[in-house]
Amino acid sequence: MEPTKIILNESEMPRRWYNIIADLEHPPLPVLHPGTREPIGPDDLAPIFPMGLIEQEVAQDRYIDIPEEILEAYRIWRPTPLVRAKRLEEALETTAKIYYKNEGVSPTGSHKPNTAVAQAYYNAKEGVKRLTTETGAGQWGSALSFACNVFDLDCKVYMVRVSYEQKPYRKIMMESWGADVVSSPSMHTGAGRMVLGMDPHTSGSLGIAISEAVEDAVSNDETKYSLGSVLNHVLLHQTIIGLEAKQQMEIAGDYPDVVIGCVGGGSNFGGMALPFLQDKLNGKNLRAVAAEPTACPTLTKGAFAYDFGDTARLTPLLPMFTLGHTFVPPAIHAGGLRYHGGSPLLCDLVRKKLIDCRAYQQTEVFDAALVFAKTEGILPAPESSHAIRAAIDEAREATFQGEERTILFCLSGHGHFDLSAYDAFLKGKLEDHEFPEDALEKALENLKEVSN
Amino acid sequence: MEPTKIILNESEMPRRWYNIIADLEHPPLPVLHPGTREPIGPDDLAPIFPMGLIEQEVAQDRYIDIPEEILEAYRIWRPTPLVRAKRLEEALETTAKIYYKNEGVSPTGSHKPNTAVAQAYYNAKEGVKRLTTETGAGQWGSALSFACNVFDLDCKVYMVRVSYEQKPYRKIMMESWGADVVSSPSMHTGAGRMVLGMDPHTSGSLGIAISEAVEDAVSNDETKYSLGSVLNHVLLHQTIIGLEAKQQMEIAGDYPDVVIGCVGGGSNFGGMALPFLQDKLNGKNLRAVAAEPTACPTLTKGAFAYDFGDTARLTPLLPMFTLGHTFVPPAIHAGGLRYHGGSPLLCDLVRKKLIDCRAYQQTEVFDAALVFAKTEGILPAPESSHAIRAAIDEAREATFQGEERTILFCLSGHGHFDLSAYDAFLKGKLEDHEFPEDALEKALENLKEVSN
Repeated sequence: MEPTKIILNESEMPRRWYNIIADLEHPPLPVLHPGTREPIGPDDLAPIFPMGLIEQEVAQDRYIDIPEEILEAYRIWRPTPLVRAKRLEEALETTAKIYYKNEGVSPTGSHKPNTAVAQAYYNAKEGVKRLTTETGAGQWGSALSFACNVFDLDCKVYMVRVSYEQKPYRKIMMESWGADVVSSPSMHTGAGRMVLGMDPHTSGSLGIAISEAVEDAVSNDETKYSLGSVLNHVLLHQTIIGLEAKQQMEIAGDYPDVVIGCVGGGSNFGGMALPFLQDKLNGKNLRAVAAEPTACPTLTKGAFAYDFGDTARLTPLLPMFTLGHTFVPPAIHAGGLRYHGGSPLLCDLVRKKLIDCRAYQQTEVFDAALVFAKTEGILPAPESSHAIRAAIDEAREATFQGEERTILFCLSGHGHFDLSAYDAFLKGKLEDHEFPEDALEKALENLKEVSN
Repeated sequence: MEPTKIILNESEMPRRWYNIIADLEHPPLPVLHPGTREPIGPDDLAPIFPMGLIEQEVAQDRYIDIPEEILEAYRIWRPTPLVRAKRLEEALETTAKIYYKNEGVSPTGSHKPNTAVAQAYYNAKEGVKRLTTETGAGQWGSALSFACNVFDLDCKVYMVRVSYEQKPYRKIMMESWGADVVSSPSMHTGAGRMVLGMDPHTSGSLGIAISEAVEDAVSNDETKYSLGSVLNHVLLHQTIIGLEAKQQMEIAGDYPDVVIGCVGGGSNFGGMALPFLQDKLNGKNLRAVAAEPTACPTLTKGAFAYDFGDTARLTPLLPMFTLGHTFVPPAIHAGGLRYHGGSPLLCDLVRKKLIDCRAYQQTEVFDAALVFAKTEGILPAPESSHAIRAAIDEAREATFQGEERTILFCLSGHGHFDLSAYDAFLKGKLEDHEFPEDALEKALENLKEVSN
């Protein structure tokens, strides 16, 4: 009998990350300094990141060795299982084969610790004592709290006020690992005090929380800032997902025709897809599908332009598909996918036609989540359910075409902290969202302003 | 480098459960019919259980084959990892070696599906279409909902009202797998209507919920009842935990000096310890330690007597340590350990001095939980944290004695749905509880009544 799960031994875990930039004929456009409009260099990033990560941000090497200390931390939960979703296949009566990589088995329940652990390590190695970050729904904040605990760093998390109040469980999880979690905007920073001064009842935003975390890092000794997606070094760390999956598919005696991941900032999709895209660059026939929400359709409806990564215009200018840095997506339950832009590296690959992009409505995504929960047993996170939706659609299409098709998707996390969303869905209260017709126009207005 | 986790392949998963009764010189006392005070027979149980499970309840065979359909369902999450807790060992600076078996990786987050899946299978096989059960905090209800979904049975869960209102996430999880969950007492049963008639504002109790589930099963066609602990067949199914652990300890080249589990009804402790106790019966030097809460110290302070398994006196008379079937334990966060009695099989082994019993206060248990979360990364369930407390104490004692000691405990589940308890602990609001001096006297009064 074929096994349901393909498990690697710890000794088989990849010992290097993969950097696709080494395999690109033309590199992505550079990130620009908003003042000079010159490409930013290591010195510009040094106040907020340690040199070990800055080097990775601009690295040209194809493979980068994973330090032993990080491998040891990975072993707490890695390698993660690759699962043949036979029960799902049977329920769909499909001619396709479906595999998924389960990143939900990490201590925080998602793929985020893959980079959190690496970032905490490089900071600790350079003598940093404390990290700051922002978190919305809490997945990233949980991962960094966990990682800081592993490498004995203090951790301060600025948690968007509305989440802080509505999702107390994520906050308690972070505190259990020893993090200091405050509601953002807070009185701890100038940016926070300013916003609170103007509107004491603000619900906060990721943009404001980023401002607070960066200000805190810049103005405190031995403190740096940490970001959970978008940047090259973050995607680099996440390639452990795809590298493991490639080994596991080989053990299964199979290779995917299509690789699927959900996209917010891009770290989960990139982590899964980049190692397979290396094969595509080398001539392999493979499709990579990025699944995003219709409520925040960055890749499918955004404009490609230089834009700020945050609302408060503190970041460098990033070359990316964007809905404009002032765009506030509707409050869909896939909070991790509510980002106006995307990883410049992935956006570059989208422009180079290496990635297909699709957008899904919230209800069709939860439909897929329930099918998955009832067949494979796992309650998936709303974010991951976008990938499930895409995988089911691929399987149905394959069945319709009478094709054998091998589908691989990344289950980025479980939904244990998202059950109120399931409740809303089961009660028929979940809303779909169209991207407002005039939103992109507004965004382009803002982008013009940026360009001038 | 030694691996952190010892993982079995699916093909190495045990194919039989272990029945310790075959190895006991003297069998446990029989369960009695409360009317006749004669040992109950299969016919007495037939209205509520399928014959496949009744046969296992009274089985004398040493091993019982696990049907292929159950093995296939187990493969959704089994075999579970055995982890060498090196980070915990380092933090404790101990001379001991600590291993734990992680049952929290199941879809519902605990060991409960090991028996839920088996019970659903035997019911489905005999043509039963619908199962009823009760649940308090929700671990068992979740497991049976999941299992009924796997074997295409309808599932009705009577959830104690106070939990139904305070722990909505567990309810939503059950509903996501298709179960019908109602607040107990409900208007769906005579027992429920009677209780509501007397006190419409009752908070409900496990005793009432059992009455409703049993009444529903008895009075509906093609419907049976399912219980998540206490009974022999439940412990039998759970022995897969210890059987796997024995294989994994062998791979690690080690054997435990002490095996630890938390005890409520006894299914988790029994599942882990019984296969090791077989070795003890065969002369092996081994201690088995059962960890329970001081708030409900059944094994450490209860009287051994025939008592009812439920408050409403619907069950047969069970020979067990008991605090009396009217005892209502304080509302500690380890809801799964709030049971007035215990598995007759385990209680028999306690009397035969094969098991040591210890009781722990809530705060010392959460102290241990935090140490575990900060070292091993996993937030444990409050129930499981009793076992962690005992394991840490064993390690400290070994260090004090200068002994190498090999400690193995069962991590019965994760604490993702128990974060409000962590919050209370972190805020210093968690209360300790002593067993009231007069409680046992009251209990004995009730027991006298039972005996007459």
